[in-house]
Amino acid sequence: MQNIPFYQEAFTSYLNAFITDKKPENLYNPIHYILKLGGKRLRPVLTLMTTEIFNSDYKKALDAALSIEVFHNFSLVHDDIMDDAPLRRGQKTVHEKWDINTGILSGDAMLIQAYQLFEHYEPKTFHSLAKLFSKTALEVCEGQQYDIDFETRDDVTIPEYLKMIEFKTAVLVGAAMKMGAIIAEASEHDQMAIYEFGKNLGIAFQLQDDYLDAFGDPKTFGKQVGGDIIENKKTFLYLKALAFSSEEDQQQLKHLFSLTTNDKMLKIEAVKDIFETSGSAEATKQEIVHYTNKAFSILESLNISEDSKEDLKEFGKQLMNRNV
Amino acid sequence: MQNIPFYQEAFTSYLNAFITDKKPENLYNPIHYILKLGGKRLRPVLTLMTTEIFNSDYKKALDAALSIEVFHNFSLVHDDIMDDAPLRRGQKTVHEKWDINTGILSGDAMLIQAYQLFEHYEPKTFHSLAKLFSKTALEVCEGQQYDIDFETRDDVTIPEYLKMIEFKTAVLVGAAMKMGAIIAEASEHDQMAIYEFGKNLGIAFQLQDDYLDAFGDPKTFGKQVGGDIIENKKTFLYLKALAFSSEEDQQQLKHLFSLTTNDKMLKIEAVKDIFETSGSAEATKQEIVHYTNKAFSILESLNISEDSKEDLKEFGKQLMNRNV
Repeated sequence: MQNIPFYQEAFTSYLNAFITDKKPENLYNPIHYILKLGGKRLRPVLTLMTTEIFNSDYKKALDAALSIEVFHNFSLVHDDIMDDAPLRRGQKTVHEKWDINTGILSGDAMLIQAYQLFEHYEPKTFHSLAKLFSKTALEVCEGQQYDIDFETRDDVTIPEYLKMIEFKTAVLVGAAMKMGAIIAEASEHDQMAIYEFGKNLGIAFQLQDDYLDAFGDPKTFGKQVGGDIIENKKTFLYLKALAFSSEEDQQQLKHLFSLTTNDKMLKIEAVKDIFETSGSAEATKQEIVHYTNKAFSILESLNISEDSKEDLKEFGKQLMNRNV
Repeated sequence: MQNIPFYQEAFTSYLNAFITDKKPENLYNPIHYILKLGGKRLRPVLTLMTTEIFNSDYKKALDAALSIEVFHNFSLVHDDIMDDAPLRRGQKTVHEKWDINTGILSGDAMLIQAYQLFEHYEPKTFHSLAKLFSKTALEVCEGQQYDIDFETRDDVTIPEYLKMIEFKTAVLVGAAMKMGAIIAEASEHDQMAIYEFGKNLGIAFQLQDDYLDAFGDPKTFGKQVGGDIIENKKTFLYLKALAFSSEEDQQQLKHLFSLTTNDKMLKIEAVKDIFETSGSAEATKQEIVHYTNKAFSILESLNISEDSKEDLKEFGKQLMNRNV
């Protein structure tokens, strides 16, 4: 296995070669714009890395890696319309730079392109990849729908929340890795295990995102700390705080989450205070450790070298320390 | 080959069995709503019919037929958002009954479901079907983009217009038939020929739609006669009229198409008058005959019985007489 920057660079070259002038420009330019906005390309890197972990050449996996990245960006374009988001990676979102119709249609074309990228594989591999992709893509849509539904519900349970982040975020991480295993012709068991590794790491990562949104270091978190609190998002921290709190604190927390206050800092501090005193902050940290360890324990059953297992663990640790 | 009502009924039963309660409801209910709105199911019927023309059992083609119909309805849901259309088949459009975000997300899920419906086929057939599907779906997106682009352009040429309707409408008809040929394991030549038959018939049908919008019988056309004229749509009739007209009539036509007048009937009559006197109405009729005959002549090269050729011709004639 090579190091992460190596895969990032190989992937970026391949992505850039994919971006050629196509007509009609008003359909393809927005696609190229969003694909060039950058990001860490973690999902495609996982596909390439996993292919090599299972003793195959990462180059065979470039199309699948690109498919995963095109799909991920498709979901960003459509989600940004739904969330009315003006910015993505510090730049204008597609529907802001063009318009909503452009965002819808270019997104649709990206979803189709993601499937097309599997066409070079042999029919049997194509079948496996496309089937996994469809299942995953549909779950991502379902996760997005649950996320939307939760905004107007006040009886969301912790298991429901965990299922939502699993579908909306984690299954794509699992699928990105399983695709590498499929291309490398790993055993059914190894394909399933690496999927579970990626999925559980994805859940841990998303829970950590919830945690850092409140308790992260503004210098390194990358997003506005307290953003979820300002938007009254029912994150894991919020749901756990409700579950752990006295009747009085529950009322106080619900009250704070019904406000669109002008004094954002005051609200953030008050909410964080409840997150800590209720024990929710600590419980969230434990849940992150739980899912990370679950991912690591799955590695044991994999039919790969101990060095490779260590590499994957190291990657997981770096990811959870946000050093990738 | 059975008759059309037979295939329509077989398809409708299969569609109804597909519509089962799924969660989250807010994602799947809109999908079931649009799929149940009805319509003539012509595209899926063509898939089933073509499978039998090439001596295979239509039942094998039900999944592919359903995929075509789900994709077609996906494109209606997203197009209706883009066109801000309130009604579809006399009922509320999805984004009107729910909201735009629901229309976007449910549409996305339908596009994925369309691919999933191919999964039961053997890997080789799956590969062929999905590849044809992706190519076609991307062309439909491109056609929709050209259609949008044309709204704000005043230099659209006849070849550009023909390419737009080919992509937006006709390729899906061709693909619906080719899928039947693929499932029946027809020869490469026959697969290609039946695709061209469907595509050319699709172009003829769309040109006829343009023609009937102005000159159709209000009792039988199904849509508001003159709708394209009121919306200043640059149809084949309009472009041909511009090409054939004197400088003066060109100015008059462009002027009429810059108005949003209150007296709709007066505008419709004035425009229709130019369509007729310029020779555009006649030229459009000839173009319809040209594409219909092109479709019929392609049939000659097919390796199927003379009876089957007659059946396909009969279907084409019924379609063009709007008796199907």
